[in-house]
Amino acid sequence: MSGFYPEDALAEIRRGFHMPEGMIYLDGNSLGPLHATVAQGLQRTIRDQWGESLIMGWNQHNWIQLPLTVGQQLAPILGAGANEVICCDSLSINLFKCLAAGLQINAPRHRIVTESEHFPGDNYIAAGLANLLGPQRCRVDAVPFNDLETLDFSDVAVLSLAHVDFKHGSLRDLPEITRRAQAQGALVLWDVAHSAGVVDIALAANAVDMAVGCTYKFLNGGPGSPGFMYLAERHQHATNVLSGWMGHANRFAFEPDYQSAPGMERFTTGTQSVIALSAVSAALEVFADVTPAMLRARSSALTSYFIECLDRTPQTSGLTCLTPKDPEKRGSQISLQIDDGFPISQALIERGIIVDFREPNILRFGISPLYNDEPQLDRAVAALADILSTRVYLDPRFQQRGIVT
Amino acid sequence: MSGFYPEDALAEIRRGFHMPEGMIYLDGNSLGPLHATVAQGLQRTIRDQWGESLIMGWNQHNWIQLPLTVGQQLAPILGAGANEVICCDSLSINLFKCLAAGLQINAPRHRIVTESEHFPGDNYIAAGLANLLGPQRCRVDAVPFNDLETLDFSDVAVLSLAHVDFKHGSLRDLPEITRRAQAQGALVLWDVAHSAGVVDIALAANAVDMAVGCTYKFLNGGPGSPGFMYLAERHQHATNVLSGWMGHANRFAFEPDYQSAPGMERFTTGTQSVIALSAVSAALEVFADVTPAMLRARSSALTSYFIECLDRTPQTSGLTCLTPKDPEKRGSQISLQIDDGFPISQALIERGIIVDFREPNILRFGISPLYNDEPQLDRAVAALADILSTRVYLDPRFQQRGIVT
Repeated sequence: MSGFYPEDALAEIRRGFHMPEGMIYLDGNSLGPLHATVAQGLQRTIRDQWGESLIMGWNQHNWIQLPLTVGQQLAPILGAGANEVICCDSLSINLFKCLAAGLQINAPRHRIVTESEHFPGDNYIAAGLANLLGPQRCRVDAVPFNDLETLDFSDVAVLSLAHVDFKHGSLRDLPEITRRAQAQGALVLWDVAHSAGVVDIALAANAVDMAVGCTYKFLNGGPGSPGFMYLAERHQHATNVLSGWMGHANRFAFEPDYQSAPGMERFTTGTQSVIALSAVSAALEVFADVTPAMLRARSSALTSYFIECLDRTPQTSGLTCLTPKDPEKRGSQISLQIDDGFPISQALIERGIIVDFREPNILRFGISPLYNDEPQLDRAVAALADILSTRVYLDPRFQQRGIVT
Repeated sequence: MSGFYPEDALAEIRRGFHMPEGMIYLDGNSLGPLHATVAQGLQRTIRDQWGESLIMGWNQHNWIQLPLTVGQQLAPILGAGANEVICCDSLSINLFKCLAAGLQINAPRHRIVTESEHFPGDNYIAAGLANLLGPQRCRVDAVPFNDLETLDFSDVAVLSLAHVDFKHGSLRDLPEITRRAQAQGALVLWDVAHSAGVVDIALAANAVDMAVGCTYKFLNGGPGSPGFMYLAERHQHATNVLSGWMGHANRFAFEPDYQSAPGMERFTTGTQSVIALSAVSAALEVFADVTPAMLRARSSALTSYFIECLDRTPQTSGLTCLTPKDPEKRGSQISLQIDDGFPISQALIERGIIVDFREPNILRFGISPLYNDEPQLDRAVAALADILSTRVYLDPRFQQRGIVT
């Protein structure tokens, strides 16, 4: 950072992103764009490392440590200790490991509480674990978010929540909720998929027990890039139920019995894709000169600007914004509840303004502090206004369903 | 294949592999080399697909189907039905899914039998599942391979074995063992990591119940590339205990309750690395014009040739070969049990002959039908003979331990 103003660092980063001509990309909450650093890093891994070193690459290029070294790169972004994060597997798999570890740490408690509007995939994983263990050993209650305020946590093993809601973009009060649940002995597990890279999460400062996330949204690790897992150092005595050879204390001794490696290494399971992890590693190099506070400030400024644009534009000022207007209470996306949201999203995409749609009627605008700016947001709102006033979205060509994630 | 002799197809494939100047690569049982088709396919995925399509890539390039489409590419190599294989996660994670599914299918049986000399990582996964479920619901017995012949399978839920032993390279009699265990009601699960791409496995013809494997050995998918899972169609009613959103019947409806997708799709869990799967897909394109029988014939010819070289060379003729001399009883590696195996492996590597070492005293030569040939094997044996007769391996520089997998 030395010698840079924050704007300089962000502008420098921005120049490295590849953005197709004429595209305004407002879907970084689903998939971040390709940065030159990533394209170059992948090239090195594929041609220079795999191509030239072959099997020796595990040693020469320290591939074997990638889950830990990428975890160390993630740590400052998450506000975690350097030895509290690994990058491997998918968010879903890491969530399974965390929930199982949480039940172990907090035994004999065996109740998992989630939010009924949590990202459904997270709740499916909890349900899968409960089905496997049976009701005597694991019970899952999905409750409305507002009920959490008065919930009795005294028999809760793990509270599993999303830091930013994927539909309406609300940022949950992580410090307060964590404190309240922990005060009654519950462990708290946050899914930070939609906050990593745009919110100053401060996992360690808030004494969060566990967290999971993915690297393909605001961290720009590539489509479907690996997930990550954070476990507070005080809990790292827990065992990994997905006890694979990479988590063994002495992998290459090939001992008949499993012995957990120390620390987070035990939560690696099988061999990880070196190419996928290299992409994440390169994507995180991009973050080396920015702090979570800088990212958060820029994200808040942009989402506020977007709301102001919507409010001052006659055709959009009456739309229902599901996202809190208080910047302290939102992540880095703005969600509009709007009839015909799907064809409207398609009409925007046709004009090069990439947004996404969530059933049944939510139009999402993901805003990245790394590559979005105010003129883009002006143009996005102007296009939305035009589409609404001309009703062009009623054209049948905008009805065909696509797939976005 | 039309118009090609097998040798033509293999020679054409071989020209595409990148091999560093002067290297004789005999470690394809650990990590296959980079093929031009893979380098080009990755370039397309990274720059043209991710770079240009961004989120629309999931739809435009059918990323979302990759676990199934790569599974369809794997099917002929494994002798499986087109709808019986998926490519995703790691071998270890897929093994966990299979074992849990096996216990469900074969309930109330709850005994898993493995081999005590099985790849330890596979046994760690079984142990992890047993620890999670407790002794009333899962028990694992690891027995010596020779005891399997007389074992009573009548209370066995799943028999979990390696098709080719990773240490000595023996090929197990898959048809016979499968038949015998199934006759007493056990399900049979084969780890085909070391046979996929070099043995005519014929999973479906042998009515195998389940199989797992990896794609980074003889399939050349890249370091740590994704694993795969085969489940016979008749068992696809089983549920996936790692029930993630990608395995839901209607992913983008974001329904609160989990509903299994039909067929193998339910065994996908979280979002998969598109870059990693694209590499595997490109690596399997290389196999489009060859059959498992062709690969097996060439592999057997090469391993036989290597043994003949060892036998006719005075300095190597007395070495203890752990691998069966009958080609029907081995995979595509030759293992020598040899004192000072580690420094000898390092001395070979220094001469550009890449082999690997397994504790305590095993020197492994992996031989690929796609890129190895007889002159390479001549040179490898000549180098080994020279190293043994000059005792150069006693030099301290060959003692330092590296990491290979």
